[in-house]
Amino acid sequence: MKELKRHIGELVALTDDEFAAISSYFRAERYKKGTFLIRQHEMVPYTYFVVSGLLKLLYTDASGKEHILSFAMEDWWETDYLAFNTGTMATMSLICLEDTNVLCLTLQDYQELCVAFPKMEHFFLQKAVSGHIASQQRILSLLSSNATDRYVKLLKRYPSLLQRVSKSQLAAYLGVSRETLSRLYQ
Amino acid sequence: MKELKRHIGELVALTDDEFAAISSYFRAERYKKGTFLIRQHEMVPYTYFVVSGLLKLLYTDASGKEHILSFAMEDWWETDYLAFNTGTMATMSLICLEDTNVLCLTLQDYQELCVAFPKMEHFFLQKAVSGHIASQQRILSLLSSNATDRYVKLLKRYPSLLQRVSKSQLAAYLGVSRETLSRLYQ
Repeated sequence: MKELKRHIGELVALTDDEFAAISSYFRAERYKKGTFLIRQHEMVPYTYFVVSGLLKLLYTDASGKEHILSFAMEDWWETDYLAFNTGTMATMSLICLEDTNVLCLTLQDYQELCVAFPKMEHFFLQKAVSGHIASQQRILSLLSSNATDRYVKLLKRYPSLLQRVSKSQLAAYLGVSRETLSRLYQ
Repeated sequence: MKELKRHIGELVALTDDEFAAISSYFRAERYKKGTFLIRQHEMVPYTYFVVSGLLKLLYTDASGKEHILSFAMEDWWETDYLAFNTGTMATMSLICLEDTNVLCLTLQDYQELCVAFPKMEHFFLQKAVSGHIASQQRILSLLSSNATDRYVKLLKRYPSLLQRVSKSQLAAYLGVSRETLSRLYQ
């Protein structure tokens, strides 16, 4: 849990006793590469904090084509937020691209944590605002940039990603064909 | 301010005294159609609650082409969140498409409001999560849907929009050309 303590500590100060109480709301899990943490059309019982490893959040359309919304790596929070918050079925899947360590939090525990520790409500507000900002930037990029620009920006922000995911995955994130992406590599 | 009271009241219960204190953090403004509330490359001093009217949040690229991130109407909160939260220059503009009434809130007042009224921190957390969910859905739509599907979904969700914005604006929101959109109208 030391990763979570450091991560929360970047935004709010916690005593050891406070963190001990807070960490009791989370359950640590280790999943093998290829495991589905969320499966499209099923319930979403958890939001996940990524301790180590890498996941992809993706939507598979009616024709079977994959569209990747995000790669979630160390220090990310990820889930299908609509399904998790409203108790509806997932419209996306969350899958391990590497062996992955996560901390799982249920909606009820998330809500109780916010009531019991106003500092955590403040923390989650900062994270939600950051998530909203990142999404606004990604929408902007999808609307206005061409594939080359999106590729360059992604690798500038996450230089290690090229070593960690396949070209097909990168193409499904950038919203371009595998062939278009191959041209960008050259 | 009665619109704000009703709007906050949908998520958290407030006494009249609490709301009187909370409302003192906001400043009401009325802007004419065409007014820039945020201008790309300038500072962003406020986040805005839309009481009535309609705004567009847009990015103008180097070639002068407009890309619309969102239409903000009654009960929406809108700003360039990255610039507002980090004190950097705006990467987008926010412009009135109709005569518009807004309530303005500075970052400092937003932060003080959250400290003074934990209920407001809870309220803003709910709104930030909703904003993040809406953005996740829009990314999904941009990645996976064709122009026809995006058009149908938009009008199903906001049936009044077709009467309130021009075809050029709709095309800039959907990420399609004006010609493609014209074909969808038929």
